[in-house]
Amino acid sequence: MALNCPIPISQYPHLLLAHGGGGRLMHNLIGQMFLQTFDNPLLQQQHDGAVMQFGETRLAFTTDSYVVRPLFFPGGNIGQLVVHGTVNDLAMCGARPLFLSLGLILEEGLPMETLWTIVQSIQASAEAAHVQVVTGDTKVVDAGKGDGIYINTAGIGILEHNLTIGPSSIQAGDAVLISGDIGRHGVAIMATRLDFETTIESDSAAVADDVLRLIAAGLEIHCLRDLTRGGLASALVELSQSAGLHIHIKERDVPILEEVQGVCEILGFDPLYVANEGRFIVILPAHHVEQALALLPDARLIGQVSDDKKGLVTLQSHIGATRIVDMLSGEQLPRIC
Amino acid sequence: MALNCPIPISQYPHLLLAHGGGGRLMHNLIGQMFLQTFDNPLLQQQHDGAVMQFGETRLAFTTDSYVVRPLFFPGGNIGQLVVHGTVNDLAMCGARPLFLSLGLILEEGLPMETLWTIVQSIQASAEAAHVQVVTGDTKVVDAGKGDGIYINTAGIGILEHNLTIGPSSIQAGDAVLISGDIGRHGVAIMATRLDFETTIESDSAAVADDVLRLIAAGLEIHCLRDLTRGGLASALVELSQSAGLHIHIKERDVPILEEVQGVCEILGFDPLYVANEGRFIVILPAHHVEQALALLPDARLIGQVSDDKKGLVTLQSHIGATRIVDMLSGEQLPRIC
Repeated sequence: MALNCPIPISQYPHLLLAHGGGGRLMHNLIGQMFLQTFDNPLLQQQHDGAVMQFGETRLAFTTDSYVVRPLFFPGGNIGQLVVHGTVNDLAMCGARPLFLSLGLILEEGLPMETLWTIVQSIQASAEAAHVQVVTGDTKVVDAGKGDGIYINTAGIGILEHNLTIGPSSIQAGDAVLISGDIGRHGVAIMATRLDFETTIESDSAAVADDVLRLIAAGLEIHCLRDLTRGGLASALVELSQSAGLHIHIKERDVPILEEVQGVCEILGFDPLYVANEGRFIVILPAHHVEQALALLPDARLIGQVSDDKKGLVTLQSHIGATRIVDMLSGEQLPRIC
Repeated sequence: MALNCPIPISQYPHLLLAHGGGGRLMHNLIGQMFLQTFDNPLLQQQHDGAVMQFGETRLAFTTDSYVVRPLFFPGGNIGQLVVHGTVNDLAMCGARPLFLSLGLILEEGLPMETLWTIVQSIQASAEAAHVQVVTGDTKVVDAGKGDGIYINTAGIGILEHNLTIGPSSIQAGDAVLISGDIGRHGVAIMATRLDFETTIESDSAAVADDVLRLIAAGLEIHCLRDLTRGGLASALVELSQSAGLHIHIKERDVPILEEVQGVCEILGFDPLYVANEGRFIVILPAHHVEQALALLPDARLIGQVSDDKKGLVTLQSHIGATRIVDMLSGEQLPRIC
């Protein structure tokens, strides 16, 4: 069994937590094991979802599992996350989210009231995001073989425009915007787990309405990417590599709440790598920046694309020095989403 | 929190394994908590997937999580199961399966070779079933918070006909066919877990080609249902309740391998409730039975639908007595798929 495993077994005989952390190890696992094995043009879009054509209709299809710990955190709970995360992945394809599936893996002994609270959050978030849970599945695993509840949602959305939104559409000269301040989801989770007092709440939110507003205004969006595990830095590195282009950003233009910055400094985290659940990057032609910023009041222009240093992300720091931004090998804190 | 929980908290303060067993407790959880909370017409189809219209195109959408233990069993492994199970749910909607999503929840410490073997099985099964894995997600949970690997697949298929296949189309006078012998998947898993020596292998198989053959022949199929957790009995009870009709079957017409019957007798299991992963029920007008049996050589006519005893399933036993077939409260053996 297991001939020619593409991950070097001598180096990684067993899965590490970092293989799910959104950094280089996960990137390699997905690239070397999954993308190569399941190789097909839709998967190779390497986007937040697959976009497929049915007659005149273009649909997006995506999936995410949620294993966040703790289940309830400042600003939300796993129920909101499973809606926002999947709705956002559809939005990143430029799709209007329509339908969700719901796969529950429940641990024996989970309090029934906890399940009920989460189920109600899922429904409230789905309603707010104009999506319907249309199909589902429920499994229960033995006590000690789960962690309360793991949830998978897959989603279907419809593309109501002719744009091709994805890494392959990114061009030199494009501008890079961020939709709002970064790091709040990760810091809220960290603070809860470490019993660290703070008023910071998760930024968990559905961003589809924001994206659809940009598209409705006729902006020529080249690429969208939501920031989750691995944060802003990992998302930019993924995009620069997929596009084979250079992304340069200025640290001082990246919006970070003072309190988030403060907690990160105390805990030794770099906010560029901290997870978000309601923030996304917009890459579009420079002449559309002004209009985009007018439509997204919390957004900021943080950088631009060039063909200088292909596949690299560079950052001009607060003190003016320029450094290369790389992926971490894993996540600074596991099980953030 | 958790006001008005529809499951009586005093009776079920915590989730039981049986809540995932495919029997009455699961049925109540889904009906009282999920169907009522997420209430919408697509979900209320109460079928193996939701069927939705996009312009001229009708698509089916379904999801399943797989938590089978052990991961490898006689006749297959979890990798085959995640393809067959979801492909079959699409087929039960009368759809040609096209696309799968793949959500992996991996436990820290899982041998890399195990993952690789399973990934290869998924791809081989997908190829054989003519479906593509087009989008995915990978999470890793801490050692002791999973059981090696849990997998969710969601699927999209296309309906290439005008039939409305589902419980609401079942009519009095319809015939009930089973596509082959029952109980092999459950017995193979049980035997492995109990270290019981047998040559029985799981029946895990993709059945979409069989279904598409019936449709292509112009048979007026009213309903399809694959047999998984809860076995033939639970599937029939679900259908009779959804349709509000009476299903009567004859025990002697239900095909069961002698060896499966033997193992069930020794272990004290009723094969009518044992899980399958490659068997399905076809409900269609009586005058189409002959043609259906000619197209499905392993199928058997096992019963018929009437409006005698609405919502009930009855069985004429080997000795000629008639009894009511009910759901078990849970599964005879948990984590069978």
